[in-house]
Amino acid sequence: MNNFVRNTHKLNKHYIGRLYSQVVTPFEVKAEQGSCVNYDKLIEQFGSDPISEEQIRRLEAITGKKPHHLLRRGVFFSQRNFSDILDAHEKRNSKVPPFYLYTGRGPSSQSMHIGHLIPFIFTKWLQDTFDVPLVIQMTDDEKFLWKDLDQKTLRTMTVENIKDVIAVGFDPKKTFIFNNFDYMGHMYRTVSRIQKSITTSQVMGCLGLTNSSNIGKIAFTASQAAPCFPSSFPHIFRDEKLNSKIKCLIPCAIDQDPFFRITRDISNKLGFQKPCLIHSKFFPSLQGNNSKMSASDGMSSIFLTDTDKQVQSKINKSMSGGGATLEEHEKFGANLHADIPYQYMRFFMEDNDELERIGREYSSGRMRTMEVKKIAVELLLDIIKGHKQRREQITQQTIDDFMNTSQDKWK
Amino acid sequence: MNNFVRNTHKLNKHYIGRLYSQVVTPFEVKAEQGSCVNYDKLIEQFGSDPISEEQIRRLEAITGKKPHHLLRRGVFFSQRNFSDILDAHEKRNSKVPPFYLYTGRGPSSQSMHIGHLIPFIFTKWLQDTFDVPLVIQMTDDEKFLWKDLDQKTLRTMTVENIKDVIAVGFDPKKTFIFNNFDYMGHMYRTVSRIQKSITTSQVMGCLGLTNSSNIGKIAFTASQAAPCFPSSFPHIFRDEKLNSKIKCLIPCAIDQDPFFRITRDISNKLGFQKPCLIHSKFFPSLQGNNSKMSASDGMSSIFLTDTDKQVQSKINKSMSGGGATLEEHEKFGANLHADIPYQYMRFFMEDNDELERIGREYSSGRMRTMEVKKIAVELLLDIIKGHKQRREQITQQTIDDFMNTSQDKWK
Repeated sequence: MNNFVRNTHKLNKHYIGRLYSQVVTPFEVKAEQGSCVNYDKLIEQFGSDPISEEQIRRLEAITGKKPHHLLRRGVFFSQRNFSDILDAHEKRNSKVPPFYLYTGRGPSSQSMHIGHLIPFIFTKWLQDTFDVPLVIQMTDDEKFLWKDLDQKTLRTMTVENIKDVIAVGFDPKKTFIFNNFDYMGHMYRTVSRIQKSITTSQVMGCLGLTNSSNIGKIAFTASQAAPCFPSSFPHIFRDEKLNSKIKCLIPCAIDQDPFFRITRDISNKLGFQKPCLIHSKFFPSLQGNNSKMSASDGMSSIFLTDTDKQVQSKINKSMSGGGATLEEHEKFGANLHADIPYQYMRFFMEDNDELERIGREYSSGRMRTMEVKKIAVELLLDIIKGHKQRREQITQQTIDDFMNTSQDKWK
Repeated sequence: MNNFVRNTHKLNKHYIGRLYSQVVTPFEVKAEQGSCVNYDKLIEQFGSDPISEEQIRRLEAITGKKPHHLLRRGVFFSQRNFSDILDAHEKRNSKVPPFYLYTGRGPSSQSMHIGHLIPFIFTKWLQDTFDVPLVIQMTDDEKFLWKDLDQKTLRTMTVENIKDVIAVGFDPKKTFIFNNFDYMGHMYRTVSRIQKSITTSQVMGCLGLTNSSNIGKIAFTASQAAPCFPSSFPHIFRDEKLNSKIKCLIPCAIDQDPFFRITRDISNKLGFQKPCLIHSKFFPSLQGNNSKMSASDGMSSIFLTDTDKQVQSKINKSMSGGGATLEEHEKFGANLHADIPYQYMRFFMEDNDELERIGREYSSGRMRTMEVKKIAVELLLDIIKGHKQRREQITQQTIDDFMNTSQDKWK
């Protein structure tokens, strides 16, 4: 970090994103021309910290669980106060949850793509590992304010996306799913307290908004911030006196960090703990590792509703890191970083040894592109098949159980 | 209106308030130095219309009721599309309400002052005259965002103010009272639609907000706008298909107009009728006719909780329009416009002949200041006594009846 950046950082950390040539906000991800997002630089830019080897070792030691492959492989790579969560777990007692998990989804498409599963898969692992309550926010209001979608369409999308979330396998006894349009009544007092603490220029700087932005966009940060505080869930955290002590851990893609940076700035003032975060990298598009998969671009995405044939065809046409000719491939090997089928394996293949073997063989040129694509197709078809099967089991009663506002969601 | 003003008015009617030396927004009332608010100029400034003699005559003709003294005496003096309301009443059928009434109160003090009764007294008369549903919004969120008050204090203030509102004598079968903190859940979809249609610069220009205003203030207009549209009250307006046709009439003090000017601009776009308005002048403070009574200034106000002695003492010390000496008084008579006890009679004395007699006698100097003050004290004590008696009858059940969200509020 040079001196200029360091000083500016001190002056106003919200604006700092703009000093870098890569721009990452919840609404815009722009890498430096022709290259991928530089995640080391992003950590510096945002002022977060890398996840350390020591933290991963400690997590394993205190939970007795092998760290998730998304953690070991650096897909989740950045954090804020993650050690506080490990502390809380160590000091836990059975009366109150040591912390709770909060993640979410903006329902902007009927079907989710495979990349959308990543934070949920990891969140499920965190819930299973730490045995804590989890709240999942569907930001239908955000999508309404930012996209050209009407509320009726959004209602359908929200229900369909909730089914996809549930199909990841969460425990309904400890998981509360809510959508802002319907839950705002329970959250509005907390939302107002947050709104009162944030100035218009703060959100403008942090989210890239302007005077011509609609007033809902200006206010929205408070909707996404509110679930960081236990007062938003009186049916889960019934003893108001403990609200100032309960921590929250947010697993999310790093582009959501600006919302929580603002939230962390005001948490103590409002009498709450700062939310802790654990950030993932973006899930790459079929076209290559320098853009993220986007549900609004059908060509860049594999959807959870795609047929086997569609998945196969999309993977076959996806960006390859193999040599241009067989000769070149055998001579130089594959570029794993640029190879989308291999990258998807890094996200979804649980077997570490097998992934290493493929990486070794493929990068040396001994394994061919078609073979790697075939393995990737099989892996993804398996993931999608399992997902579809679990999704079909979901009834209205299942949904109601997850969205129930009178259930405790804690043992 | 000179040409410069006229053209600017066309360019952006929201900003026009700032071109005049008197400033009137919901948060600031500033007359030109040393003088009273110029209401004729305000009509020009805001682009509303005066209430015409013809409208008052027509109201009497179609309802068969003698126009309320607040209307006859020009306390309610300005309007927007009031004739549409008269049209709707004439064309009414018994199946749907021809329109509904909407008014409100920002609960920023434990006790309301006598001036706060004025819009409610007039609204009750409108409800009795037109036999329509009425919604009353308590903007506890507004007061939270603007004032240094916590939510617990506001909760008490809101309940106490609701009791004062109920004591005016509304019909619980046709009146729905709600506070934003608790009702937002029912209204948030409509609020979001409004937020999506208003830009940040629009509210900044219209309400005098800036980039350092908190984001709740920027968004708040949508809370106050939402009740203008029937979709905010699904328990009252059950047939969604009629929502685009139902009109709303808002009786309020003129300083609230900026919110509704913004609302009127977006109503048609959202598929609703523009709200119609009928505006009152400000209720003068004890110190004189050039400032309005303010509950946060105990010295300027007579509260509904004041004792008889307090009322008497406050009126006796209030600004008088009588002559400085008895000799001068008998020679020049009283200045009725500057005389606060007389002005309060204009607001509260129903008997027109008696008010005229007092005005004649006092302005000619035949009646003395102490006599006028005595009449004013008796009148106000009578008002406050009746209010206290009705207020004492209010039980939790009464409040619940008014705030019930499952009751029809229409025959």
